[in-house]
Amino acid sequence: MELDYDVVVIGGGTAGVTAATTARRHYPKKKVLLIRREERTLIPCGIPYMFGVLDDPCKNVNPEHILSIRGIEVKIGEVKQIFRQDKKLLLSTGEEIGYDRLVLATGSRPAIPPITGLDRKNVFWIKKELEYLRQVLAALEQAQRVVIIGGGFVGAELAEQIRKYRQLDVTIVEILPYCLYTSFDEEFCFEAERELQALGVKILTEKKVAELAGAERVQEVHLEDGTVLPADVVIVTTGVRPAADLAQAAGISLGPNGGILVDRTMATSDPHIFSCGDCAEKFSFFGGNPVQIRLASVAAMEARVAGANLFVRRRESPGTVGVFSSKIGEKAFAAAGLIERIAEEEGYDILLGEASAPNHHPSALPGTFETKVKLVFDRYTGILIGGQAVGSDSVGELVNLLSACLLHRMTAVEMAAFQMGTHPLLTPSPPAYPLVVAAEEAAVAKLEPKQED
Amino acid sequence: MELDYDVVVIGGGTAGVTAATTARRHYPKKKVLLIRREERTLIPCGIPYMFGVLDDPCKNVNPEHILSIRGIEVKIGEVKQIFRQDKKLLLSTGEEIGYDRLVLATGSRPAIPPITGLDRKNVFWIKKELEYLRQVLAALEQAQRVVIIGGGFVGAELAEQIRKYRQLDVTIVEILPYCLYTSFDEEFCFEAERELQALGVKILTEKKVAELAGAERVQEVHLEDGTVLPADVVIVTTGVRPAADLAQAAGISLGPNGGILVDRTMATSDPHIFSCGDCAEKFSFFGGNPVQIRLASVAAMEARVAGANLFVRRRESPGTVGVFSSKIGEKAFAAAGLIERIAEEEGYDILLGEASAPNHHPSALPGTFETKVKLVFDRYTGILIGGQAVGSDSVGELVNLLSACLLHRMTAVEMAAFQMGTHPLLTPSPPAYPLVVAAEEAAVAKLEPKQED
Repeated sequence: MELDYDVVVIGGGTAGVTAATTARRHYPKKKVLLIRREERTLIPCGIPYMFGVLDDPCKNVNPEHILSIRGIEVKIGEVKQIFRQDKKLLLSTGEEIGYDRLVLATGSRPAIPPITGLDRKNVFWIKKELEYLRQVLAALEQAQRVVIIGGGFVGAELAEQIRKYRQLDVTIVEILPYCLYTSFDEEFCFEAERELQALGVKILTEKKVAELAGAERVQEVHLEDGTVLPADVVIVTTGVRPAADLAQAAGISLGPNGGILVDRTMATSDPHIFSCGDCAEKFSFFGGNPVQIRLASVAAMEARVAGANLFVRRRESPGTVGVFSSKIGEKAFAAAGLIERIAEEEGYDILLGEASAPNHHPSALPGTFETKVKLVFDRYTGILIGGQAVGSDSVGELVNLLSACLLHRMTAVEMAAFQMGTHPLLTPSPPAYPLVVAAEEAAVAKLEPKQED
Repeated sequence: MELDYDVVVIGGGTAGVTAATTARRHYPKKKVLLIRREERTLIPCGIPYMFGVLDDPCKNVNPEHILSIRGIEVKIGEVKQIFRQDKKLLLSTGEEIGYDRLVLATGSRPAIPPITGLDRKNVFWIKKELEYLRQVLAALEQAQRVVIIGGGFVGAELAEQIRKYRQLDVTIVEILPYCLYTSFDEEFCFEAERELQALGVKILTEKKVAELAGAERVQEVHLEDGTVLPADVVIVTTGVRPAADLAQAAGISLGPNGGILVDRTMATSDPHIFSCGDCAEKFSFFGGNPVQIRLASVAAMEARVAGANLFVRRRESPGTVGVFSSKIGEKAFAAAGLIERIAEEEGYDILLGEASAPNHHPSALPGTFETKVKLVFDRYTGILIGGQAVGSDSVGELVNLLSACLLHRMTAVEMAAFQMGTHPLLTPSPPAYPLVVAAEEAAVAKLEPKQED
């Protein structure tokens, strides 16, 4: 028996679900099928919280009804091969499914670092699989000492949750000078590390893991400098790689970082096949170079572009801005676009603006703490190219305001007269609003010294 | 003795302070004087919280050091007259002060509604004067029943604080169909009223006050429909009017709403005199018509334009967007630009987008509640003309993201592929992010029915 669909989406993660729902919104008469391997899918960014504040891992499962209420059919199964000539898929069951448009949203898999002994028992990755994560949780129940290899967002959030809610001995081993170093400038990394350390998380930076030693089960983490860390459980969070095998086997072009090559409409080298999310190659909003930024929020944006373009060309992705946020301890950290260090590495001549203010006004109001903003501008054009912030939970939306400023290439001069709304209980005060004050600092720095004469 | 300054700013509120600090930033060699009447100035938006959560009214006083560290001189005094020909000011002390550039930031004063008996004892306004507000607080100490005339932001916030922290019997009398009716569409007003009512605040809408009756002290509020409300204290919060007398006496042009007429550089009809804040006439970002929106955040923006333009023409105000936020009970309410009702009154053919999602993902995380967004687009161009939101405190920054979208005249199509950052503890999930989902709803609604064939 052969089933045919107008649209087949492979992958049940953020990209797949959003592409399918967008396709149905834009083309309500089309028959849409989503094929995924997992019976139940996880909310990817919620995974660290399955190890802490969420008392039941099932609470991080995606609600299934979103697909059914949108009229999207779901098949649990594995696609073995794509026959592009015939526009057909072969499933591992032998079943064949015809498509008119195909969306590849096959996601990513953990990157494997060059460490000996990764195959020992109690060495885990963060996979988006409920049953696998239950095994990690079971191992943690028996553990005293946990070593997390990699201090990016996932490693830092995981360390925070395991330490805070399980009181285990937690050590992060990071190869770079700071945790979160690819996303933040040093002063923000330092503040995040201080939050982790205040909770009792140990942090070793500029350290490389050589070997995971032990009998059957991992017992020690050996660093290249000779340090030996005892460990009952090791969790490896050293990033992800695009899962592009299916596309590659079908002769679809890949990009320089191994993701499925896409144009700005999210079409692959086959015009009937689109791709979005972690499996798709990413290009920077700043200059168009390939970047390794894989985020659920980027996946959702790409899926909204792919899904809308399936039958009529409707929108384009402007490239990946990269908008991050996290909460470590009591503080929210967020960044959008280029940080100072990376902007300089990319060859920009930059102008900085920095400002800080209490998140309530007057600051005597309860629950007040400081919101700090750092903006990076291109000196030549005055255009914003990046921003970072730390403060209360509202920083999670403040960074989205920064993203809007980035996407519209706002200049320091424009941002210095930005019309924000303010409220005593919700934001810093109008004269001190840090985004605007930081922009004014950069706008004024751009002036010639003798302007006023 | 005659003192001369390069820049004199009249007014010590948000506009005056921000204009003075901006002038110093842009023209660091210029001598700047700020003249104000009050020994100590209040944070205007913080005033309702002096009646509740702030246990000491002095905690809502502006920090004085901001002016001194910027090298701005301060004089406490009253300007009686402006001699424009001589570029001189006459103070009530008889002192004369010369200026090269003058900034009028004389603010606003409470509007006086046509009610009989406003001169009775225990009838108060919300003035930005510490000693006056101490009298209101003292009267409340003796009171049981408080009637607030006017259910705008100030009235609603005041009612909430007095009820919550003083457990008095509080009634709001509002002439319009809902509280907050000039800033929000009905469904948001309804939700805000429900929060107030849950705290025990009584609300009477579509009711007009005829008279405040009593012996010496106010004892009753008589409504036009015959209802009599007993009252120990009455607070009138029926809006403000620009304080433009000084400018008018000096022959400076006023605008249709009685504010000081300014161009987009914030210059008045006298090119050496600028004006900003509540005393300046406001023009809408949407079409340029005069509007009655007086906010500290608008004052700060205008002051940043005025201060930068004093000696070299550097920036323009694009007009007043109007960005509001407030917290009533447990919910934050915010709006930017035009609401549905006013957009229709202004003659737009509109498209709506509405969406709602939990502010955390998964929603099982603690402290989760719904964030609801409503967007108003111009159907013809697809451009955003307004947005409203209700939810957690982050709505205070979410509305600033809406303001950035408005200022850049983003379309529904652009916003539907907006690159936001998301985080389980800080924002809704990527597929459900309500601003984007609402924009997509409007973007799709714009499509012709037969687009896909």
